[in-house]
Amino acid sequence: MRTITIRLPAAAYPILIGNGALAEAAETLCALCPGKRVFVVTDENVWALHGARLDSVLAGQGISYGLKALRPGEESKTLATLEGLYGAFHAAGMQRRDPVVAFGGGVVGDTAGFAAATYMRGVPLVQIPTTLLAQADASVGGKVAVDLPQGKNLAGCFYQPSLVVADTAVLSTLPPREWNAGLAEVVKHAAIGSEELLALLEGGRVDAMEEIVALNCQCKASFVERDSLDQSVRMMLNFGHTFGHAIEKYHDYKTYTHGEAVAMGMGLALQAGRLLGVTPPEDARRLLSLMERLGLDAHAKDPADALVPLMAGDKKNIGGDINLVLLAGIGRPVPYPIQPQALASLLAGGNM
Amino acid sequence: MRTITIRLPAAAYPILIGNGALAEAAETLCALCPGKRVFVVTDENVWALHGARLDSVLAGQGISYGLKALRPGEESKTLATLEGLYGAFHAAGMQRRDPVVAFGGGVVGDTAGFAAATYMRGVPLVQIPTTLLAQADASVGGKVAVDLPQGKNLAGCFYQPSLVVADTAVLSTLPPREWNAGLAEVVKHAAIGSEELLALLEGGRVDAMEEIVALNCQCKASFVERDSLDQSVRMMLNFGHTFGHAIEKYHDYKTYTHGEAVAMGMGLALQAGRLLGVTPPEDARRLLSLMERLGLDAHAKDPADALVPLMAGDKKNIGGDINLVLLAGIGRPVPYPIQPQALASLLAGGNM
Repeated sequence: MRTITIRLPAAAYPILIGNGALAEAAETLCALCPGKRVFVVTDENVWALHGARLDSVLAGQGISYGLKALRPGEESKTLATLEGLYGAFHAAGMQRRDPVVAFGGGVVGDTAGFAAATYMRGVPLVQIPTTLLAQADASVGGKVAVDLPQGKNLAGCFYQPSLVVADTAVLSTLPPREWNAGLAEVVKHAAIGSEELLALLEGGRVDAMEEIVALNCQCKASFVERDSLDQSVRMMLNFGHTFGHAIEKYHDYKTYTHGEAVAMGMGLALQAGRLLGVTPPEDARRLLSLMERLGLDAHAKDPADALVPLMAGDKKNIGGDINLVLLAGIGRPVPYPIQPQALASLLAGGNM
Repeated sequence: MRTITIRLPAAAYPILIGNGALAEAAETLCALCPGKRVFVVTDENVWALHGARLDSVLAGQGISYGLKALRPGEESKTLATLEGLYGAFHAAGMQRRDPVVAFGGGVVGDTAGFAAATYMRGVPLVQIPTTLLAQADASVGGKVAVDLPQGKNLAGCFYQPSLVVADTAVLSTLPPREWNAGLAEVVKHAAIGSEELLALLEGGRVDAMEEIVALNCQCKASFVERDSLDQSVRMMLNFGHTFGHAIEKYHDYKTYTHGEAVAMGMGLALQAGRLLGVTPPEDARRLLSLMERLGLDAHAKDPADALVPLMAGDKKNIGGDINLVLLAGIGRPVPYPIQPQALASLLAGGNM
């Protein structure tokens, strides 16, 4: 097991990473529970597969817990679920120092995290991510949110956990599509900030989970620590995402997972970067070939003129421009504001 | 007009205070609107009385605005209202840098503030409080929230505004009960931290609004600046409130305003302090006599054994104790944890 410490202006917290990290984290977790009580938010699948693991850790420390298992899937990430969680926290007699434990993937982490951030104006939060995406990406950053009918993640805030435990043992039960979803963010981190991670992936070491998760957390932390409120360099983490969000939206979030959309989004960002003379062709080729070897499809199937208007509505835009992130080289993401019309023409003219 | 600057770890912001401050604040407000667009949240009464004032300030600066006027009253402070505001922000095309302007009393400030804190993970917030309570108390502190069926302010967070404008001219239309509600918090600030404010009130200068609001903001800031997340000294602002909340709750929030309950809560806190040998009798008498002269009723009518169990459920409690704040003298609030049973016996035995 290894420990990475995230240092932010508002707080610092450890991420414990490794095969069996959950059992090893028992005492650290217990130290966060002066009232010997937590509230566990999970989803039905995760609880069925791994609930016994968490139960035994809590029981071993004499910690009692309330439990809410959400229905798996993005449909649970709503204000209605949030309201239900508030009610469950209250019914369980949760007090201000009793932590919420988010035990699951992104939907659980985002929803339970937002509930913890806002119940009684904030109770402690322990994140125990159970997907590659959540371990390698959502562990760092403190973004919590629910979806609104008007858009994804539209209601949320920044809230840092007190502790993150990334037990790589639970990743063994991930379905292939969810695995790939995480892998897309892993490639993104390698592209924008970690030669070491890129080399590991190119070397075929996709099974070195502890190392991969740790390098991801370090890479993401290097951006977040400089900009915890998402106002400047943190935007670089958006590489592939402005296009990716538009692809998800174009298919009404039904056809592709977030990771699949991000892989295609990176393909488009590399293409745009190449056409604009920002991205060296050899770096684009290097990343596209890695994604191919990893089984990630980077070739968007949707017409650019359908995607661009959807990008114009992204919440990261300022004024009329679309705020792209392009790659000036491996580890060198750059902001690139562009008018929607110019982007549409560019992509319509260029060949994939 | 005078300006007080609140300095917190996360941010600093000015409070502009005075008769006509709203008109004088026009340029400061405009500087916060790069997109020349804001969303105004108000209530129907405030908008009818003072909407033209804000409209002319915004029009004068060429700022367009979306508008939502809530139904007046605590009933509007719900998750449903929050959801409606998110939808209205989206429909108005609000982007990340467009401020929400909360123009009204505590309900508007709390609800619009929470919406601003969480829409797109936070958009800028301008508070224009229109009641004495909101100007003298809620201007400082960054507490925003909505009520849940399970309790008041149970869902919320800390979120600092970019600007507060306290125009004392609008206070002239306040109904007497709302005036008194604010006055109770003013007396509280004088009691826990401002001899100067106390002297002003005792000198009968209740009309010196600019000075009174400014002294209140300074007093509250002196606590909040040392403890912006409400973990230590900020708790002193709770003087009179642990009892006050119980009184409000006992009457299902129907009989008394928050201020009326706080005045009676301060009466009980002074009584408890006297009985426990913490509060010098002459200080208790001084404050009770001031409240009487100001027309604030400090004599609780409810049986202590009904109030104490309600206090045991307060969200500021830790473990089994009730966390009282007592007065060891003017300007000397002290925390005083006490077992519910001990407090009930004390109050049952003591005479008012």
